[in-house]
Amino acid sequence: MTEIRIGLIGTGYMGKAHAVALKSVASVFDTGLRPICETICATTLEGAREKARAFGFNRATDDWRTVVADPAIDAVVIASPQSTHMDIAIAAFENGKAVFCEKPLASHAEDCRRMMAAAEASGLPNMTGFNYIRTPASQFAHDLVQSGRIGQIHYIRAEHTEDFLSDPQTPSHWRTKDISNGCMGDLAPHIINAALRLAGPISSVSADIQTVHSERPGADGPEAVTNDDQAHLMCRFQNGAMGHLFISRVATGRKMGYAYEIYGDKGSIRFDQEDQNALWLYLAEGPEAERGFRKILTGPVHPDYLPFCQGPGHGTGYQDQIIIEMRDFLKAIETGTPVWPTFRDGLEVQLVTEAAWKSSKTGTWATV
Amino acid sequence: MTEIRIGLIGTGYMGKAHAVALKSVASVFDTGLRPICETICATTLEGAREKARAFGFNRATDDWRTVVADPAIDAVVIASPQSTHMDIAIAAFENGKAVFCEKPLASHAEDCRRMMAAAEASGLPNMTGFNYIRTPASQFAHDLVQSGRIGQIHYIRAEHTEDFLSDPQTPSHWRTKDISNGCMGDLAPHIINAALRLAGPISSVSADIQTVHSERPGADGPEAVTNDDQAHLMCRFQNGAMGHLFISRVATGRKMGYAYEIYGDKGSIRFDQEDQNALWLYLAEGPEAERGFRKILTGPVHPDYLPFCQGPGHGTGYQDQIIIEMRDFLKAIETGTPVWPTFRDGLEVQLVTEAAWKSSKTGTWATV
Amino acid sequence: MTEIRIGLIGTGYMGKAHAVALKSVASVFDTGLRPICETICATTLEGAREKARAFGFNRATDDWRTVVADPAIDAVVIASPQSTHMDIAIAAFENGKAVFCEKPLASHAEDCRRMMAAAEASGLPNMTGFNYIRTPASQFAHDLVQSGRIGQIHYIRAEHTEDFLSDPQTPSHWRTKDISNGCMGDLAPHIINAALRLAGPISSVSADIQTVHSERPGADGPEAVTNDDQAHLMCRFQNGAMGHLFISRVATGRKMGYAYEIYGDKGSIRFDQEDQNALWLYLAEGPEAERGFRKILTGPVHPDYLPFCQGPGHGTGYQDQIIIEMRDFLKAIETGTPVWPTFRDGLEVQLVTEAAWKSSKTGTWATV
Amino acid sequence: MTEIRIGLIGTGYMGKAHAVALKSVASVFDTGLRPICETICATTLEGAREKARAFGFNRATDDWRTVVADPAIDAVVIASPQSTHMDIAIAAFENGKAVFCEKPLASHAEDCRRMMAAAEASGLPNMTGFNYIRTPASQFAHDLVQSGRIGQIHYIRAEHTEDFLSDPQTPSHWRTKDISNGCMGDLAPHIINAALRLAGPISSVSADIQTVHSERPGADGPEAVTNDDQAHLMCRFQNGAMGHLFISRVATGRKMGYAYEIYGDKGSIRFDQEDQNALWLYLAEGPEAERGFRKILTGPVHPDYLPFCQGPGHGTGYQDQIIIEMRDFLKAIETGTPVWPTFRDGLEVQLVTEAAWKSSKTGTWATV
Repeated sequence: MTEIRIGLIGTGYMGKAHAVALKSVASVFDTGLRPICETICATTLEGAREKARAFGFNRATDDWRTVVADPAIDAVVIASPQSTHMDIAIAAFENGKAVFCEKPLASHAEDCRRMMAAAEASGLPNMTGFNYIRTPASQFAHDLVQSGRIGQIHYIRAEHTEDFLSDPQTPSHWRTKDISNGCMGDLAPHIINAALRLAGPISSVSADIQTVHSERPGADGPEAVTNDDQAHLMCRFQNGAMGHLFISRVATGRKMGYAYEIYGDKGSIRFDQEDQNALWLYLAEGPEAERGFRKILTGPVHPDYLPFCQGPGHGTGYQDQIIIEMRDFLKAIETGTPVWPTFRDGLEVQLVTEAAWKSSKTGTWATV
Repeated sequence: MTEIRIGLIGTGYMGKAHAVALKSVASVFDTGLRPICETICATTLEGAREKARAFGFNRATDDWRTVVADPAIDAVVIASPQSTHMDIAIAAFENGKAVFCEKPLASHAEDCRRMMAAAEASGLPNMTGFNYIRTPASQFAHDLVQSGRIGQIHYIRAEHTEDFLSDPQTPSHWRTKDISNGCMGDLAPHIINAALRLAGPISSVSADIQTVHSERPGADGPEAVTNDDQAHLMCRFQNGAMGHLFISRVATGRKMGYAYEIYGDKGSIRFDQEDQNALWLYLAEGPEAERGFRKILTGPVHPDYLPFCQGPGHGTGYQDQIIIEMRDFLKAIETGTPVWPTFRDGLEVQLVTEAAWKSSKTGTWATV
Repeated sequence: MTEIRIGLIGTGYMGKAHAVALKSVASVFDTGLRPICETICATTLEGAREKARAFGFNRATDDWRTVVADPAIDAVVIASPQSTHMDIAIAAFENGKAVFCEKPLASHAEDCRRMMAAAEASGLPNMTGFNYIRTPASQFAHDLVQSGRIGQIHYIRAEHTEDFLSDPQTPSHWRTKDISNGCMGDLAPHIINAALRLAGPISSVSADIQTVHSERPGADGPEAVTNDDQAHLMCRFQNGAMGHLFISRVATGRKMGYAYEIYGDKGSIRFDQEDQNALWLYLAEGPEAERGFRKILTGPVHPDYLPFCQGPGHGTGYQDQIIIEMRDFLKAIETGTPVWPTFRDGLEVQLVTEAAWKSSKTGTWATV
Repeated sequence: MTEIRIGLIGTGYMGKAHAVALKSVASVFDTGLRPICETICATTLEGAREKARAFGFNRATDDWRTVVADPAIDAVVIASPQSTHMDIAIAAFENGKAVFCEKPLASHAEDCRRMMAAAEASGLPNMTGFNYIRTPASQFAHDLVQSGRIGQIHYIRAEHTEDFLSDPQTPSHWRTKDISNGCMGDLAPHIINAALRLAGPISSVSADIQTVHSERPGADGPEAVTNDDQAHLMCRFQNGAMGHLFISRVATGRKMGYAYEIYGDKGSIRFDQEDQNALWLYLAEGPEAERGFRKILTGPVHPDYLPFCQGPGHGTGYQDQIIIEMRDFLKAIETGTPVWPTFRDGLEVQLVTEAAWKSSKTGTWATV
């Protein structure tokens, strides 16, 4: 098996997830390439060394430039703060590395566009990290829609809701300040990506975006919250379908509310990531007395489940989504063929976000 | 117990429901008044006689004018087609009858306003029939919100979705023609009423309304569908909360999708009429490890449940909602005190509907 | 419509339920007979008069003997304490009345046998009150099994669990004393009846029966609990299937835990009365990727639902089960044909109970 | 970090799961030891080499004796067929290796006892593989019970049900023949282990065990099924609680029906592995109107969740249970302290199985 050396930039939440995925992906899947955890990059050298030890990397650094310039590195995984994505990615492409970059690519479409241009100019494999859509259930949902199993889609309702800031007494921190785009920057990309994947391109949106708790306790008294807590948008899709997307970090009680309902004229699909191993399917066929939403437990017959377990209903989890992503990234490198979602797909998501911002300001529908 | 003689106009879906409620309400509840099923009115005399026999009424007629003018009748229940509501109600008030009228009061706000004016001018008891909000679960939801148990509300999502027209081959009929206002006339009133009840007055809306299946099989070939199949609207409430209402008669798989989620800063509520005996409550209190949405089964400790059964979780059903309504109407008559929802409340619902129509046409937010 | 005069004996929990059912059954269903609430019997004359007023009966008495002997009465509904059932029922048959008797017919099989003998000797309509099995969902479950839709049944698990005595500090009362047979007398009949209905005759059982809280607070200090709090039994059915029945009044959190799972070789059924309007059906057919338990919401296509509502998923409740029972009792009277469950069926249930008692004492399997 | 060299014996279902766990455990958890995938052993050398490549092991062999005798190997993971467990384990202990052995240790208690004796005589770390009980939800359930949160337990109902043999046309194979102990050998150990963990030692059982489909298609016509398809047992626990365990490989529709309900006098717990990231908890405290089973989504505050993900509700899966097991095995090696469940615990499970076999034959209760 060919080895491929990886540089991982970022050691936080997503950094760790990718580190674990790199360790196990070639044992879970029958990949042609086996990734080697070569270099890990953190903000301090001490931190990087600690994480190299913890995650099992050969080398540690506090300078991402040495990673992207290192001839021993074949591919770069970017899991650092959003504001650093663009410079790293572009430099990596310039140095001939394949790049996997966490969502959102950048804070604004213009930067995403530059990243995409660099990626496509380089001809190198590039991929954006939208992990939730990789569950066997959501992959199967996509297959069902594509195959026409639920007919022509006319409505989709989707949300990405969590409640980590629902308590107004939760202190001010970086997520509530200018450095972040709020829930529209953090959570919206996931669910916009899901909507695009499941229902196709969005042509226009009408959005309403709000900061629910306008100040939070800071070190020296109340501090202003300068970005949004909740948002929602009505969409029209190119195929005529209507949609509604709801994004919130103050949805009390919701922990991983990445959920959608898709209504077609032959059937419907419901999914909630809080029970990620089940897909609910209604088919308008067979005796009416026997119709109902069926709770399908994912298993070996569903996309990408079997390598994790031979038994249906035994379940995959969060970490497994990242492993699936990494398998796809390896496949893109091995075959030289782009694997969805590329940087271009990452840009598409950002364009919807920007239309929502615009609509929210003008009070009218905005074209994507 | 004082007897009160009722004239029931309409013998269809809702007519029967009210007939049954009239028979049992005074046995279920400890009402001060006992309703007597005096006269039933259908479109033909033969039909009226048949229904009088089936539902146990003393007399039958095909002329609603004789009912509202009959000195032996104390109160009128209007369950006839929507287009007939206004004339009947106004005539009934003029003849000194208390009036219960099914929702929506009328097709347009102007007519609702005339009905409300007649009601208030008469000083007689008047009530609009929004049955779903009367379940013990939804009454308890209202109590929880009012008491501040879930804190300040910042988001409500609600829907009234069914699928009786989701099959494009379902033939054209009165519900798909001009006589009807589509799902905005049929289903929207219920869920707008719920939103107003649970989250307070709505100040503005942005709506999108659509006919999904533009024609349906008719007797002589395809016929145009001239009203809407699905609609949704974003709202801003007077208290600052955001909301989304979704209405559909083509939501494949949804049978009684009268459902809502209410997010507050101390807790949240979820409800779905398809499991009407459960209310889901999340409280952001106690040890974090023990927090979760709790499925509360309604029982004797919840509003209006006990008269139906002494055991919790034994459940009430559709017919019981109508019985609760009738109890309230009797109470309004007995006490002379208005009982929510009056004709004025029925008008409030219609004003939101009209704002939605306007917004849908202009593509901008409309003030209610 | 022919009128039929009813004497109702008992004014408690079940007495009220039957009173309400008598009022509405002929309006809900297209019955050939219309019951008239003629006489109600309570333990005191004052109480009977109060209930006659509340429930709308013509006459009141404190002597059941005058009811069963009254030539103006056509049928008797027995909803009085269990210890009184036998004498009333036998006297009623001797006086030529049709008899509906709440479950269990009597405390011991011997008495049940005498009641059945009197019923069958009289040739009069007789029926035992097992209301829960009358929900549209459970009727549909029965239809599915009978039609072979889930194939040959090999396992059934069923329970009737509630928690009204789960708190050891709940005071001693009649249910915890000798007058009652504990949960085996109160709750077991319902679920044994369900097992017999759904899986056929039981040939033998192995049972374990327990008093969990052996004393409870009384007026003058702790009092012994002299009957059982929980029980379970393994069964072998005549068709070879295995089964397990669990009965408890101390199942903390369970409010109406009348639930069952039936496994066949072509499919399975799951039901829980706490969500009584849903039946879960799994069919081992069609693409494996699309298989799952489907949540079927009862509607007009399911047994006995339509008369309550034309819309699916709108739901029936506890009271509606009693109305369905009363419809069946009227049908038995009208047609002179026995309607399940007769007194003979009530006896069958008691025979399983007695086998369980025996097994529990000997520690071996007992033949029914 | 100290490295420790592992020999993995077995490359099937569980072999792969352990291989993946060995790769990632030291990145997920902050272990003191980092396992090195040294040697993998399959039944053929070719197969072993293929698996060494696929799973990333340094060496391959078809002779387990060379593994247990290899001085370069520190610990052995046994995931080979059940009939081989004893010889491998005993030889490994004799060679000074720590041993992790998949459940069940052996087919009969006598062999388990020999294995336990060898383990304890050696003083080496030893562990039995019961993965399902390691989910964050089941660990939390155990914590809740231990802390008295749900009071004194009086009933537990548990099952391990799947449906991989529910179709009578599924061909005969090794699982349906003498080499296997049927569902009592395959599935029962998991749920007996859960019952012992959650409710304490079992003192006696009454069991019923059955082969539902007595023959299955073989290569040359029907072949007899010589072991059991379904079984259930009633238990009495040492603490007085009653219990019921149901085991089936023909439970149509059940994919991973490892589920339990625990009733205490202060609360109750419900769990189903098919939704393994949720634990349902009912607490008999607070206002009665607000009581209900709460669906707790596991998160960073629950045992062993945080290393997998910082966000609650994001979910762990089947593979993660194996990683947790491996972390515990490493801890046992590092600290020299036994970690539950040891070989002794594995024997305890087998003793209950044997009592069930005995009871099933005699038709009486059997002491464990």
